[in-house]
Amino acid sequence: MVLVSGGMDSATVLALARATGFAAHALSFRYGQRHAVELEAASQVARALGAATHRVEDVDLRSLGGSALTADLPVPKDRSGGEIGHGIPPTYVPARNTLFLAYALAWAEVIPARDIFLGVNALDYSGYPDCRPEFLAAFERVANLGTRLGVEEGSFRIHAPLLHLTKAEIITRGRDLGVDFGLTRTCYDPDAAGAACGRCDACALRLRAFAQLGLTDPAPYQRRAGG
Amino acid sequence: MVLVSGGMDSATVLALARATGFAAHALSFRYGQRHAVELEAASQVARALGAATHRVEDVDLRSLGGSALTADLPVPKDRSGGEIGHGIPPTYVPARNTLFLAYALAWAEVIPARDIFLGVNALDYSGYPDCRPEFLAAFERVANLGTRLGVEEGSFRIHAPLLHLTKAEIITRGRDLGVDFGLTRTCYDPDAAGAACGRCDACALRLRAFAQLGLTDPAPYQRRAGG
Repeated sequence: MVLVSGGMDSATVLALARATGFAAHALSFRYGQRHAVELEAASQVARALGAATHRVEDVDLRSLGGSALTADLPVPKDRSGGEIGHGIPPTYVPARNTLFLAYALAWAEVIPARDIFLGVNALDYSGYPDCRPEFLAAFERVANLGTRLGVEEGSFRIHAPLLHLTKAEIITRGRDLGVDFGLTRTCYDPDAAGAACGRCDACALRLRAFAQLGLTDPAPYQRRAGG
Repeated sequence: MVLVSGGMDSATVLALARATGFAAHALSFRYGQRHAVELEAASQVARALGAATHRVEDVDLRSLGGSALTADLPVPKDRSGGEIGHGIPPTYVPARNTLFLAYALAWAEVIPARDIFLGVNALDYSGYPDCRPEFLAAFERVANLGTRLGVEEGSFRIHAPLLHLTKAEIITRGRDLGVDFGLTRTCYDPDAAGAACGRCDACALRLRAFAQLGLTDPAPYQRRAGG
């Protein structure tokens, strides 16, 4: 079971899981995100990397509000590297990874699949509490206490293989595994055609990592005014 | 925040939360349960007990399968008291409480509400792993590690005030608090009109408790053949 958002990190995780020999079931969520273009990217990524199935679940987080990713709040732009990752930004979505993991757990128990992969990382990240190792460990405990499979066979594992990698290391790892990053979408605030803004935190981290490696990001970006 | 299923236990929990002085936000789920009549009961219970709001969320657990409550598997009937609660029965729904609590957490964080109540109990229960105290403690830890409010103020609490009560004690408590159990629906396999079967585990536990107290259950039951 691999949570696939359509972004760079989860694509790399899917490739890693496949390379390790797992049959992969990809899971994505239509949760009211303003960047729903990522779901089309998720489908393409799942197909390109040989996922056995790809499920897109509807979970309404938009009507709850509370986040710049689902509500009419501005997405921060043009923040410096020093600003990103300090404090929890308005793009935090309340309890998103808890909810996504809970649904993944339900599906995993039915399949059954004991290994749940997700692409969170704790370096070069946006400061979200539900991307931290202590959160993942706590959720793994919930999985093994709160399910039939967990209680009877005690074996769910939450895998976050990118947890301690930088974005540049993730790109390198993904390229080695044949991930086509041109299919992935990272931007929090893309235009209607799916082109990235280049200015939100997610774009900034991604562009900086490609630049560090001396590479050009193959994903489409909006032309800057006058650019 | 009170998870309200439409059953006896969650109605009593809602009454307890209100009696303790909480403004209550009631949350129910349309998850593909065959006993969706409970959602109408949940609305009536929420209204009767003065919930400030009542939200019904759609979460598709039916298409996952794996449970007699959501799939075309038979609901066990006519099991003895000794059989009920030994082993996890087919009415177990994979990761249901994890998922419900995850959604409750997302909504609670937005409100914000720090107290999440649910009506699980570990006596006279059906043997579900996600009704046990160790599961609830693990989820509380997830809530406080995986959310902004939890990290910044560390204060989510999962309340399960019925955890150590028998069903008969729950009825007594509920009656003291003015719960109209005639509004509540417990049956896993009701008929189209919402009348209870009287024979599934949930009915058996409920009927036994009313009988222990020398009371008649005010909820509607199907007439037995020849009865």
